[in-house]
Parts: sequence; structure tokens; C-alpha cells
Amino acid sequence: MKNRQFLLASRPVGNVIKDNWDFVQSDVPELADQQVLVKIEYISLDPAMRGWMNEGKSYIEPVQIGAVMRASTVGKVLKSTDSNFAVGDYVYGHCGVQEYAVVSTADIHKIDTRIASPERFLGVLGMPGMTAYFGLLNTGLPKAGETVVVSGAAGAVGSVVGQIAKIKGCRVVGIAGGADKCAYLTQELGFDAAIDYKNCNVKKALKEHCPRGIDVYFDNVGGEILDDVLTQIRMKARIVICGAISQYNNTTPVKGPSNYLSLLVNRARMEGIVVFDNVEHYGEAAAQMAQWITEGKLKAKEHVVSGIEKFPETLLMLFNGENTGKLVLKVDENS
Amino acid sequence: MKNRQFLLASRPVGNVIKDNWDFVQSDVPELADQQVLVKIEYISLDPAMRGWMNEGKSYIEPVQIGAVMRASTVGKVLKSTDSNFAVGDYVYGHCGVQEYAVVSTADIHKIDTRIASPERFLGVLGMPGMTAYFGLLNTGLPKAGETVVVSGAAGAVGSVVGQIAKIKGCRVVGIAGGADKCAYLTQELGFDAAIDYKNCNVKKALKEHCPRGIDVYFDNVGGEILDDVLTQIRMKARIVICGAISQYNNTTPVKGPSNYLSLLVNRARMEGIVVFDNVEHYGEAAAQMAQWITEGKLKAKEHVVSGIEKFPETLLMLFNGENTGKLVLKVDENS
Repeated sequence: MKNRQFLLASRPVGNVIKDNWDFVQSDVPELADQQVLVKIEYISLDPAMRGWMNEGKSYIEPVQIGAVMRASTVGKVLKSTDSNFAVGDYVYGHCGVQEYAVVSTADIHKIDTRIASPERFLGVLGMPGMTAYFGLLNTGLPKAGETVVVSGAAGAVGSVVGQIAKIKGCRVVGIAGGADKCAYLTQELGFDAAIDYKNCNVKKALKEHCPRGIDVYFDNVGGEILDDVLTQIRMKARIVICGAISQYNNTTPVKGPSNYLSLLVNRARMEGIVVFDNVEHYGEAAAQMAQWITEGKLKAKEHVVSGIEKFPETLLMLFNGENTGKLVLKVDENS
Repeated sequence: MKNRQFLLASRPVGNVIKDNWDFVQSDVPELADQQVLVKIEYISLDPAMRGWMNEGKSYIEPVQIGAVMRASTVGKVLKSTDSNFAVGDYVYGHCGVQEYAVVSTADIHKIDTRIASPERFLGVLGMPGMTAYFGLLNTGLPKAGETVVVSGAAGAVGSVVGQIAKIKGCRVVGIAGGADKCAYLTQELGFDAAIDYKNCNVKKALKEHCPRGIDVYFDNVGGEILDDVLTQIRMKARIVICGAISQYNNTTPVKGPSNYLSLLVNRARMEGIVVFDNVEHYGEAAAQMAQWITEGKLKAKEHVVSGIEKFPETLLMLFNGENTGKLVLKVDENS
């Protein structure tokens, strides 16, 4: 059995290019004790992957040159040496951008595909959903009646942030690129307003749609939009720094927020989050999110591209803003 | 009786220049009910004054063109129409850069010059001391054993921040400009280390003096130093944004912190403070600080310049880093 894999061949300078990858075939190793062989069905594509390709300290080790590219995955167990995992079980893990993985069972967990289809465990019921849930509720601390703004609002995290903020009784304004995404936010997800940053003056639009100012800003993009938001925050506002996708491919230094002294004027706070800190509470969050989905209060959308060989160009969709909803790669285009 | 006053003649572009001021003489008005005539003895010079000279919204109204420049002051009551204020009482207020002021007694409060000399109520027992006390303790949240870094460390706020952090059992590193200031911090105020930003690589020095990383950073300066600190923060660090004196005279946009994504990696927080929010608790803080002074745990130093006519050049000392301790202007050089 041959395993097709994407290895990190070199570290990108600026944009990720095809030469940063080696697409190889290798043999699938034998199983040791307490391991499973997983046939990977869906691979999660996340903005954070860009950071994992860089050298140097971050919240997680960088992917080593020559190693399989790190990715969250869902797949089916084909072989097992752990009695707690049966052939046919679906499992979630960080199995990487490949067709098969042999992994220790300590590093994976079973998912219940009766609740939701497997790819959904990479989106609203996976890391992006958890990021939205804990980042908004524990750090954004939204209160009913407050105004919540989220950037990257049509993406995997942002779309969930906005919907949870609506559930909590907030006025919700999403920032996204393009009329289609904006229509998706207001017409399908129930956002109060959407700002198309590609086709309008964001600062003016924020003034219009947030007449009382912004209490909570959940930032996925950084750059100019963060600076625009800083001009419109209210007293004691909370800014959740989840990511800065506009800056990840920079070859120049990251654009720091020039308007950060608005934090002083408004006694406001800017705080970074990493989802892994909440691992003990994932279960509660998933149960709550599943209930909201059942009740029709929380909608999820996956943007599925098929064929593992399309990984390089599919990853770029994230940085070009071409996905609406959670971007996933379906490994086998024929299944 | 003639009153010499500094009026704001024009708004500065970049550095404050002499032409931004009108130095005039005017008559002292008669007292209405519930007012006092104050002979101002000491005028507080604070970095915040630069911001008050700008047009536009901040945490306080800008000084209007043609108005007496706003300043905190201490002085002696010469006349009174309020039975609660006797001739000879010393009072604190925002009486402005002038020799005399007629003010409503609702806008001033008495100070007890048996506890400390009048000018001290503009420093450690005044706004700078309160800023240090509440900013560090309520927002910096230092715990014994943690590492606290403060910039502008030889200034009115920074010197108090560092000493309170020492009292709370922290390792304290101050950043200041010049060998004399650094010696003052370590030899007189008991800081564990001092970094002379004018004569060393701040990032390297932070690594050396904060081997475990930085838990709390109290920022008075902004700019490059804030960026250097961001590279060295620990998990769950707290950055208190008190000011950004390096940026106040900019004619270009404020330099935002390029390394702000370190907040994300380290799940850290950056939060702005304004001292006025704590007005209800000034009394407790002043009592605590006075006790520490009595016990010899908290030292204060004022940098006194005499002669109200020297106001313009004395104000510039703040931005040129020429003061050690609280900068005050003594109104009458002969008294």
C-alpha cells in the first residue's frame, strides 16, 4: 500500500509556492502497540498552517523540513492494535497532509458520525468552532445588547463567532471580502450587517453599522482593518486577537496597529488566544454547539475541494479569500 | 494684582515650540460664592500635556486655543468665600500654568502639608503616584516572584511603579535613558536591574536581565521599546499601556507595535489605563503610599525648576528625557 504525502520541502518567503512542497509516495509502516492505521478522508486547511511553516518559536513547534505537513484530519480506522479503537471507527487527529497515517491512539479521539458528517468535525465541531466559542465567550466576554464585530467573518472561525454572538443577544457586524460573502452573512447566518472590505471604506462603514461603537472585536485578519476598528471602540472594549491572515505572507515586518493608543483612551484591552488552552472543556463546547445546530441557531458550511494532489493551490484559497465557510480537502476525489 | 499666565496660542505640529504659547498678564477676577483665590506654588509638568494640546477626542477635552494651559497644581489659599477653605490652606487642583487662579471649591481639595511638602502632592502622592499604583496593581496584576519591566523608569510614574513592584516581591527591571538614571534606579530605588536604552541593545539586555521572560510590562514610552518587550513576554503576560511618550511629538503616524502577535503566541494582554477612573479610591492609595514612604520602602524625588517664565523649555525636558523623578515648576523662584 502506497501513501501519498505532502512534505515541507523549504520554508516560504512571503507567499507559499509549489516549490515549498514535495509530493511523494512512501510505504505505510507497520503498527506498534496502541496504534491505528487511519485512512484519512478530510484534511483541514487553516490559516495557522502558514505560521507552522516558519522557523522559530511560536505557540507550537514549526514543521520540520522534510516532515509531513501538519494538518488536522478526520479518517477511518483500517487497522488497530488498541482494543478501544475498532476497524471502521472515525477518528480526529493531527495526521497531516497524506492519505494514510499510523498514529498512537493517545493522539487521536473518536468522533461520532451519527451526530454530524465527518468533515464537520474539522469545522464547527472542531478547532475553528472551539476557537470561536472560547475566544468569544471567555476573552471577548460579550454581553446582550453590546456590539460585536468580527473580521474574516465568512470563514470557519468568524462565521461561528458571529452566530454565537447573535445567540448571546448582541448586535453583530461581520467584515468579509465580496458581495457574496456579505450576503451569506446577513441572509443565511443572521448577522445584523456585513461590511465588504474590498468595496467600501471600512472605517465609515463601521461608523454607520456600529453607531454606539464597538464593544467586542474578534480579529482574524490584523492589518488596516484592526486599525480601523481601533478608531471605533467603546470604553472597556475587548479585542480578541485570534489571527492576522493579512500579515502572514508578509516579507516586510508585520503592520503593528498604529491606533493602539485607542486602548488607552478607551481603557480597552487586546488579548491573544490559542484554542489548545481549552482542551479540557472541548466536550462541553461541542455539546453546546451540537445543540445549537440541532435547534437551527448555528449553521455550518464547509467548502470542500477534492483530491489530495490539489493541496498546494487549495491552501492558497485561504489567503486569497476564496473560501466561504470551512475549507477542507477531501483526500479521495472518487469516494 | 497681576497674574502671569501661559495661554495656548496654537496647536503644535510635532514638537512644541515657543510660538505655541502666549505669555500674558491679566487681572485676577473677583471671587463668586464657594470659590477661593489660590496662589499657585508648584505646577506639575506631565507627558499627558502634549496630548491635551492636540485637537480632537481623547480621554479628556483638548485645551482650547486662547485658554490657560491645563496643569495640575498645588498652592495656598489667599481669599475664600467657602467656610470649608481657610486662608493659608494648601490645595490641589487643575489650576493651570499661571500664578493665581480663582476656582470653585468643588474643583479642588485640601492637602496636608504636615505629611509631605506641597510639591510631593504632584508626584508620588498625586496623579503620577496614583497612575502607578492603580495601573500596576489593578491592571498589571503582579504576583510575587514575577518579573516586572517598566519604561520611563526614572520618571514620575515609572519610578513609583518599580518600587511598588519591589514591595510586592517582584523582580524589577527599569528602562531609562543614561547612566545616571540607571544608577538612580538600582542604587537608590532598589531596582534589580536597569537598562540604558540610549547605550545598549534593549532586546539583548531584556534577555539578560529577564531570563525567565517578562510577566508584566508597564509602558510609558511606546515605540521600539514596546516592540522589544513584546519579543520577551511570558505566557499570560500583562502589558499596561499608560503612555507612549516616544510618539507624542510625531508628525508621522504612531508606530504601532509590529510584534503585537506575540500577544497571541503568549495568550497575553495589552490594556490601557487612565488614572481618573480610580478617583473613588485615591484616598486608600494615598494612605498606603504615605505609609510606604514612612517605612522607607517608597522613595520620591522631584526635579524642580524655578520661575514660571521657564515653562516652555521646562516642558521640553520631559520629551528630551532630561528629568529624573517628578518634574515640577516652582512658580516663584524667590520664595
